[in-house]
Amino acid sequence: MMKFAIFLFFAALIPAKYASAQACVIESLINEKVQAAVDSKVSSILAKAQLTCTSTSAPGADAFCPSGYLATGCACGMACGSWDIRADTACHCQCARIDWTAARCCKVAIVG
Amino acid sequence: MMKFAIFLFFAALIPAKYASAQACVIESLINEKVQAAVDSKVSSILAKAQLTCTSTSAPGADAFCPSGYLATGCACGMACGSWDIRADTACHCQCARIDWTAARCCKVAIVG
Amino acid sequence: MMKFAIFLFFAALIPAKYASAQACVIESLINEKVQAAVDSKVSSILAKAQLTCTSTSAPGADAFCPSGYLATGCACGMACGSWDIRADTACHCQCARIDWTAARCCKVAIVG
Repeated sequence: MMKFAIFLFFAALIPAKYASAQACVIESLINEKVQAAVDSKVSSILAKAQLTCTSTSAPGADAFCPSGYLATGCACGMACGSWDIRADTACHCQCARIDWTAARCCKVAIVG
Repeated sequence: MMKFAIFLFFAALIPAKYASAQACVIESLINEKVQAAVDSKVSSILAKAQLTCTSTSAPGADAFCPSGYLATGCACGMACGSWDIRADTACHCQCARIDWTAARCCKVAIVG
Repeated sequence: MMKFAIFLFFAALIPAKYASAQACVIESLINEKVQAAVDSKVSSILAKAQLTCTSTSAPGADAFCPSGYLATGCACGMACGSWDIRADTACHCQCARIDWTAARCCKVAIVG
């Protein structure tokens, strides 16, 4: 019976020791892998976050950006440099009887 | 005593085998989970990185962007289209006796 | 022999139980660590994704943005406000005999 107890003790103790040692190894393994994976992935994806711009123009005093884009500047016919941006996405030229209006439109996009 | 040695052998060997097999399973489990978590998280957060713009205007030849914004374009009164941007954040209209100046101001912001 | 079988049973069973319990603990540990690491890393890197702008100007009707930048707006000499952007990166002023052209150029950059 004494032998039985001794064996039982080892049978329980040894795996427990492994389990405990493993927990530490596993935890640092997880930390290490997570940091490396996150670093490389985030950097590679972030490098794809780029400014994307396009231009639109229309006859008259108003030009509109495509959906998702914001106006960053406007140009007007007749050499006119007086304009304002409406609702963040439309250019309005203020000179009388303006012949054309152009909008410069940009957004942040994930490219590639 | 012979029996004892045999039992000890098993008691030590079996957990060691488990530990080793587990290490592999754990490592690939970590890799897999990290990749999946990073992919979805980065994509969902990146989708929130958007261009945010606002306009300011002021009497006279100078208009200033709010803190954190950069000027992307300027508009001037009196149909004037000659301007320059100072310190990345301020619009200056160059025509003489200009009555008003407007700045278009943008930044990248985490939205939502 | 009976004792031997019992001990073997324990020697095999106990580590197996540990292994199984550990798998769950490990899996949730991985999930937790991954989520935390991704959250903090993505947020800290994303905060560095900023709009960066610069201006260029040149004599004549054309001004070009530096490599990597896109034109967000243009200014012209002679009070001219009529311009267009070519190939996303160059400003062209449309008024006759224009003396100078300036381009406002921006990109998304990882800052700091």
